[in-house]
Amino acid sequence: MNDQKLMKATLQEYIEAFNAGDASRVIALFASAATIEDPVGTPIKRGSEEIAAFYGHATTLGARLELQAPPRGSHANSATITFKVHIAGPNGPAHIDVTDVMEFDQHGKITSMRAYWGPDDYHIASAS
Amino acid sequence: MNDQKLMKATLQEYIEAFNAGDASRVIALFASAATIEDPVGTPIKRGSEEIAAFYGHATTLGARLELQAPPRGSHANSATITFKVHIAGPNGPAHIDVTDVMEFDQHGKITSMRAYWGPDDYHIASAS
Repeated sequence: MNDQKLMKATLQEYIEAFNAGDASRVIALFASAATIEDPVGTPIKRGSEEIAAFYGHATTLGARLELQAPPRGSHANSATITFKVHIAGPNGPAHIDVTDVMEFDQHGKITSMRAYWGPDDYHIASAS
Repeated sequence: MNDQKLMKATLQEYIEAFNAGDASRVIALFASAATIEDPVGTPIKRGSEEIAAFYGHATTLGARLELQAPPRGSHANSATITFKVHIAGPNGPAHIDVTDVMEFDQHGKITSMRAYWGPDDYHIASAS
């Protein structure tokens, strides 16, 4: 599938559902055999059960995604979002700089999510 | 290789070299067998000759890359940049919203560049 508007609408819904803390809305965007690599370079989670566990946990942490630029499509079935994740870290407020690359099936469901962020993309807010 | 600082320094040099219109500086950042898919979903360019032709042309167009967020690393050998490309389009000033995903070898050379942008990420500046 190559419906740029549908991919971007799904990415927008992903952000809104995540920020609403609604794991079931987030999970509903994924195909049943989807994979998640978050962050890129760590073991892949695969399938509905692992995806549900991942977002079931992630949406209880009070994290908030702040989009930093418009989503990008492609000339194929993939699209990206670039955002900050604001979190209440163990040492106070923090954020992580992230770019997600998502692939979609012909029904507009996410089949692959890869989250690009490295150890030094985690920023602890400086004390003031 | 997994040197986050080296990958990000290379991405910064990529932007500066491109904006200086210096194709040889850009090309020097790539491994000899590197691939370019720009935009994602179109045929892949491969190897020094095709990469030189690609950037030799791209850097003559007066395009300018404007970073929109800090580069992201990963827990592996890949990193991303999210930027606008400002161009003098056939119908006046325009910009393209792009995210590049790059992979690197153990020497810090780029082995793969994939540029995510779709047909509707090309924006013609509105007349005023």
